[in-house]
Amino acid sequence: MSETPQGVSVHPVAGLPEFSPGDDLPAAIADAAPWLADGDVVVVTSKVVSKVEGRLVRVPAGADREAARQQAIDDETVRVVARRGPLKIVETRHGWVVAAAGIDASNVRGDSLVLLPEDADASARRLRTRLRELLDVEVAVVVSDTFGRTWREGLTDVAVGSAGIPALIDHRGDVDVHGNRLETTQVAVVDELASAADLVKGKLAGVPVAVVRGLGFPTPHEDHGTRPLVRLGAGDLFAYGVRDLVPAREPGRDLVPRAGELAAVAEAFRIASAALPEFPVVLRYGDEETGVVDVHLPDAVTTTAALNLGAQLGAAIVQLHAEGWTTRWEPVGTPGGSSLVGRLWLGTPAP
Amino acid sequence: MSETPQGVSVHPVAGLPEFSPGDDLPAAIADAAPWLADGDVVVVTSKVVSKVEGRLVRVPAGADREAARQQAIDDETVRVVARRGPLKIVETRHGWVVAAAGIDASNVRGDSLVLLPEDADASARRLRTRLRELLDVEVAVVVSDTFGRTWREGLTDVAVGSAGIPALIDHRGDVDVHGNRLETTQVAVVDELASAADLVKGKLAGVPVAVVRGLGFPTPHEDHGTRPLVRLGAGDLFAYGVRDLVPAREPGRDLVPRAGELAAVAEAFRIASAALPEFPVVLRYGDEETGVVDVHLPDAVTTTAALNLGAQLGAAIVQLHAEGWTTRWEPVGTPGGSSLVGRLWLGTPAP
Repeated sequence: MSETPQGVSVHPVAGLPEFSPGDDLPAAIADAAPWLADGDVVVVTSKVVSKVEGRLVRVPAGADREAARQQAIDDETVRVVARRGPLKIVETRHGWVVAAAGIDASNVRGDSLVLLPEDADASARRLRTRLRELLDVEVAVVVSDTFGRTWREGLTDVAVGSAGIPALIDHRGDVDVHGNRLETTQVAVVDELASAADLVKGKLAGVPVAVVRGLGFPTPHEDHGTRPLVRLGAGDLFAYGVRDLVPAREPGRDLVPRAGELAAVAEAFRIASAALPEFPVVLRYGDEETGVVDVHLPDAVTTTAALNLGAQLGAAIVQLHAEGWTTRWEPVGTPGGSSLVGRLWLGTPAP
Repeated sequence: MSETPQGVSVHPVAGLPEFSPGDDLPAAIADAAPWLADGDVVVVTSKVVSKVEGRLVRVPAGADREAARQQAIDDETVRVVARRGPLKIVETRHGWVVAAAGIDASNVRGDSLVLLPEDADASARRLRTRLRELLDVEVAVVVSDTFGRTWREGLTDVAVGSAGIPALIDHRGDVDVHGNRLETTQVAVVDELASAADLVKGKLAGVPVAVVRGLGFPTPHEDHGTRPLVRLGAGDLFAYGVRDLVPAREPGRDLVPRAGELAAVAEAFRIASAALPEFPVVLRYGDEETGVVDVHLPDAVTTTAALNLGAQLGAAIVQLHAEGWTTRWEPVGTPGGSSLVGRLWLGTPAP
């Protein structure tokens, strides 16, 4: 039998103590893992980073732990992305979209809640520097947390902080063995490292640190930590889940014109009329100049026709907002003899 | 310096040939990895499984490769979840939500596109059985593919098929060292294995198989493969992304009453009025019986008021659909003296 080829190995760092605010995490890791070597990736569960950094919310004896948890979630939340019952999926100020703002009540004393580190990239950089000082090794550091995913059951560990390693390894522009250019193969290597480390860390064994050896990676010229992983704004096709679908984009007053408004309105009305067949309306819209779409009712303007048009218009505007447009509606008053009922301005918000 | 503690190791399977339909993948793996041992997890890139199973679409010389790719995506799609330009995020018939139905044009000859395996769990089971026959080893198998994620840049490998290992390891009901019950710690271990394997497989090196050793896992009593990972339907808070937000739920004609309709309507109108401040309306709605909400205009019913009400109503209905309600609108005709303009029925669709 031939020898098993070398690849990557993942090693637990056992024997670490329970951590409290102010403890020296790098010294504890250096003590427990004197075998750390150049090129290793040290993957640390965010919870111990938060503990030593004092990112804890104390829950007084007798207080409602769940109410305190909901309050802490709200305090850490920039935006609620989806909500169902007590479950909130939110955007944190770090730019992570995560259930309960990453706050967890497990693996912590009953009187505390643990928040995500204030700046886990900075935590990773400090840990990396201190391990260099203590052990004379050049390692990368990943701070990991356990996140859920859309459309897939089960949790996996991902990176919320990193130092000394590119978050994304970019194969774009490379050519595969068949000569096809690889267009979109940007691998989130720090997330894969977090997942690999979780295979040995376990959830109950009290092993919050693992080391991945043998990967081989470039040291980043400028270290942006995990910032390149954040995908929000225009690239995000899932900005709104159940619940805050509609209010998420309030129309701005000042619009910057953007091309394609007539096609967007046509598509939005097509979608709205398919969704709301009980509000039948024959409408016309015309594009007189960039950024404004006149909305006409060709038939006699009755209140029923106006209600039906309104329903289609409301649904179409919601659809336009969901697709990144900002809108402004200008009514033309009671139509009277004219069939023109209003003008819909489309654009992007003024900066 | 103390010895590095054992954990989990990930080994590349090098020297595999280029695969074509009908090739014997298990025999090739057994040849290339005679060192396979009991308890190993063999992680195989789905692309080679698809190739040997003939899950290829030939693109004739001179044909439009992108058009052929879009057609293949449509053919593999159960439901478009989001769309922007040529990018489609779809639900495949396996229940995976993935860009381009998991179809990739890289790492394959220019005249072909590779589809996901027809049933990658079955592929994994067959590979597991054949490796037992060929090498007398009891291994688990994971079939992996490279997926994007919401809100995070970069791709990671996840499992699309598995055999001989539970997809989820369930810590629910376990108690942590502080005595807190862990409520939701279901780890998607096969996804973490796929990510760990990707660390050694690389994208260009032609290493489509890696082996994870040292994990330790129970053999499932009944092997459901990756089916437990599929999260669709009621548990999915992100059923609709950009583009098919509105049409996704057409109102059904037959409704089954469901509790909470008045609160849902109140919330939907609150959200709609925040999103559409340019359509001001003072409206009243009342709940006369379960499942029906009367919608009144308290002021004089002008066409402008009707248009404004319609806009709010259309946006509110979209919001209600997004939250899982089915609606039916029954107009009460031109209001005349009455302020009642219609009735909104809410419920769930009749089965």
